[in-house]
Amino acid sequence: MDATESTWNRLIEHETETALLGSIQSLLAWDERTGMPPKAADHRAEQISFLAGKIHARRTSPEIGEWLDELATSSMVADPHSDRGATIVQLKRDYDKHRKIPQRLVEELSRAEVLGQQAWVEARKASDYERFQPYLETNLRLRREQAEAVGYGKSPYDALIDDYEPGETADNLRRVLGGLRSALVPLISELGEAPAPPSDACLQGYFPVDRQQKIGKRAAKLIGFDFSRGRLDETAHPFCTEAGPHDHRILTRYNVNFFSQAFYGTLHEAGHGIYDQGLRPDQYGLPPGTFASLGIHESQSRLWENMVGRSRAFWEFLFDETRQLFPDSLSSVSLDHFHAAVNVVRPSLIRVEADEATYNLHIILRFELEEALVTGALAVADLPDAWNAKYEEYLGVTPPDHGDGVLQDVHWSAALFGYFPTYALGNLYAAHFFQSAEQELGDLSEQFRRGEFAPLRKWLTENIHRHGRCYSPAQLLERISGETLSHEPLLNYLQGKLRPLYGL
Amino acid sequence: MDATESTWNRLIEHETETALLGSIQSLLAWDERTGMPPKAADHRAEQISFLAGKIHARRTSPEIGEWLDELATSSMVADPHSDRGATIVQLKRDYDKHRKIPQRLVEELSRAEVLGQQAWVEARKASDYERFQPYLETNLRLRREQAEAVGYGKSPYDALIDDYEPGETADNLRRVLGGLRSALVPLISELGEAPAPPSDACLQGYFPVDRQQKIGKRAAKLIGFDFSRGRLDETAHPFCTEAGPHDHRILTRYNVNFFSQAFYGTLHEAGHGIYDQGLRPDQYGLPPGTFASLGIHESQSRLWENMVGRSRAFWEFLFDETRQLFPDSLSSVSLDHFHAAVNVVRPSLIRVEADEATYNLHIILRFELEEALVTGALAVADLPDAWNAKYEEYLGVTPPDHGDGVLQDVHWSAALFGYFPTYALGNLYAAHFFQSAEQELGDLSEQFRRGEFAPLRKWLTENIHRHGRCYSPAQLLERISGETLSHEPLLNYLQGKLRPLYGL
Repeated sequence: MDATESTWNRLIEHETETALLGSIQSLLAWDERTGMPPKAADHRAEQISFLAGKIHARRTSPEIGEWLDELATSSMVADPHSDRGATIVQLKRDYDKHRKIPQRLVEELSRAEVLGQQAWVEARKASDYERFQPYLETNLRLRREQAEAVGYGKSPYDALIDDYEPGETADNLRRVLGGLRSALVPLISELGEAPAPPSDACLQGYFPVDRQQKIGKRAAKLIGFDFSRGRLDETAHPFCTEAGPHDHRILTRYNVNFFSQAFYGTLHEAGHGIYDQGLRPDQYGLPPGTFASLGIHESQSRLWENMVGRSRAFWEFLFDETRQLFPDSLSSVSLDHFHAAVNVVRPSLIRVEADEATYNLHIILRFELEEALVTGALAVADLPDAWNAKYEEYLGVTPPDHGDGVLQDVHWSAALFGYFPTYALGNLYAAHFFQSAEQELGDLSEQFRRGEFAPLRKWLTENIHRHGRCYSPAQLLERISGETLSHEPLLNYLQGKLRPLYGL
Repeated sequence: MDATESTWNRLIEHETETALLGSIQSLLAWDERTGMPPKAADHRAEQISFLAGKIHARRTSPEIGEWLDELATSSMVADPHSDRGATIVQLKRDYDKHRKIPQRLVEELSRAEVLGQQAWVEARKASDYERFQPYLETNLRLRREQAEAVGYGKSPYDALIDDYEPGETADNLRRVLGGLRSALVPLISELGEAPAPPSDACLQGYFPVDRQQKIGKRAAKLIGFDFSRGRLDETAHPFCTEAGPHDHRILTRYNVNFFSQAFYGTLHEAGHGIYDQGLRPDQYGLPPGTFASLGIHESQSRLWENMVGRSRAFWEFLFDETRQLFPDSLSSVSLDHFHAAVNVVRPSLIRVEADEATYNLHIILRFELEEALVTGALAVADLPDAWNAKYEEYLGVTPPDHGDGVLQDVHWSAALFGYFPTYALGNLYAAHFFQSAEQELGDLSEQFRRGEFAPLRKWLTENIHRHGRCYSPAQLLERISGETLSHEPLLNYLQGKLRPLYGL
């Protein structure tokens, strides 16, 4: 074996063991959020922070830097999108970035995230922004420091979003999200003025939990979530995680008086799970076996939740079964009525409860605000007024207090800036991908109507999942569609579906 | 700080971290046996064996040996039963023993355990003892080698049982278990000839699982299992485990047509759980916070399952509730009838299904056989005949095939020799302890009748749980009762309960 080959082997062994530790940590976190006894919390925190420490030390150990420097000049990176090439390029990218952040800043950030979240919980409860303000100032100051340490092109915000959406920039987001906003605001106000808007009252009846579990599991299986490699459980704040290459766990929350919460929550998390299950097990924990970005991950959940799960064809297949399970609430509801109900658009205050269309405006205004905070164009003290003004301008609603306004999300308290846009990017990518899939696979509605979701799932796996992190989000999109990111596919999809449902 | 104090701190830090890893490993194993997706098994094995390797390396690292040598000559061991004294003495005992076993033998044993269990699964399915025989021979040879390496007093069997029941010997077991056998065989045959034996047909009706869960959880809580520090789940092969000082998990299995399986299974595991919950959290993972022996652990499960859970007073409190939950099967059953039903004695072939009285004979014959195997007095080829002869002699039953005979237990295939006696020791200790508790606490039946189980639980915690491994099982018994182990308390208890129920 030559020297480069043996360095490669050392690197892979190291990374595989780090991934093994990571998968153990994931299981501990999953258990914490499903059925852990309440008094076990302290010991669980010790277990998780012990593993986090080991993982951090492994990720930043100087020997990896030496291995990567050696490999980066070898013939292995001739094709940076090949398994070996992408592994070296992506690991070196992460490593170099992390090494630029001083250890002191890493520690200050960890501390600030914990303190910020604690302060946020209290401030939100009391609707007291001023109590939270100093923590937000600290978080911003530390992240700005991080941006300076790491370096950036035009805006310090670019350095932050890069952690979640490699290669994305504030300029590009302003272009695409701005375009989307300019078209969405009038569309939503047009729907709001429709003479005969659909009603979603039928979704707010009585839906026994065991039957919700049944139809949720049925739908997740139908769209391709593999239960021999996964499970579905209940939790307070739904998510999707994995504890190994064949161990994918999705979680949902049931509301006995509202059908959509668990059903679409399950489809959403199943979409995430299907992406993870489509990653290559033989590359587990390595860049070719890792998701491309948060935006691409979100595109998979949104595509199954909305473009599939809120389509008429989907319900043509599944509505009879669903109606039979919930005779109390649905026996006199028609397919058309139900399909319109799950697509009702209604501007509201709370992001996590928003419908498919208005959701994007919740995200766009957060992006605009946080970018201004990071660059300093907006002072932290002025955030609540700016927040309320934008809610009024984009959605026509005004928060009654800061708890349901500027304090509603955990992200900023945890020093996450640049994370919000990935939610909207998910919708944008999903619309691009769905359009390309239709072009290649023919009429998808025809397939959904027959309960056939495998062709779409396989197409997504072949075109997206299997590539892991070998391409950037923009490169993935270009390979699939030949296009650059645009708001048009999403806008066309929303208009095409919603206008007829609203009789416009 | 003086040098000894600083060595002590290093030792405790080391052991605490090892315990943290052990608690993570436990959670992985718990998850594997509750809801892990089937295809996740290979990765789970990797996770567990990775941690097992780390733990093993930590337990046998030479620096601990040096620390323990230093501490063992310090004033800290002046009282070997104090927290520090016991910690040093017990850790040194384990360390010295482990260091005597050559690494090659450790590895051969791990391999033999896996291969043995795989062969056993197949051999049992096919009722084919000869297929299993070579693996049993290997397991015995390796354990004999271990006994020679570790050293022993009179019998190589002593070196093996010491792993599970510190200080126990084959001679002592022969004395006590022999005494029990001589008295039990005639008692059981006397019960078998009783003119009007009780019937347990009422336990074999229809018992919906959700209601079994309800009454099982109710009973576990009643006897003192703390659900804020634990949980109850379902599994194929019930057990009790912990993933931290405040995280105790018990598991049971439901049979919709047999009440006793899950109910007594739950009480049994809750008894184990109560012991673990009674250990001192501040000594987690250290000898003062670790259970004394498998026999003492089993004494706690058996005491709650049998001496409490099969007592008339227990059912005087809980029968009405139980009957209301299962009207189909129990509405016309009287308390006396039900109490007799849960105490029916019936010689049978399968250990894990045996009643409270005959169970001991299943264990005694296994002890006699495995001791003879270890010393070489019995050839492996002759084991099936010896097995069948003893079943005929002690229980009056003959296995129809080896699958339900000599191949019924996993233990020998996993190279566990000296483990079986701890099940009978549990019953023997339980009878001693229950007798002492009654002497100190007054009429326990009177308390049970009122649903008061806390005084007994607290007595057990004070007298047994809180001492962890600071005393050997024999020392614990001596401190509590002034007695040495005898078969008489158990025999008196069984006779006193069973004779009247059988009209003798």
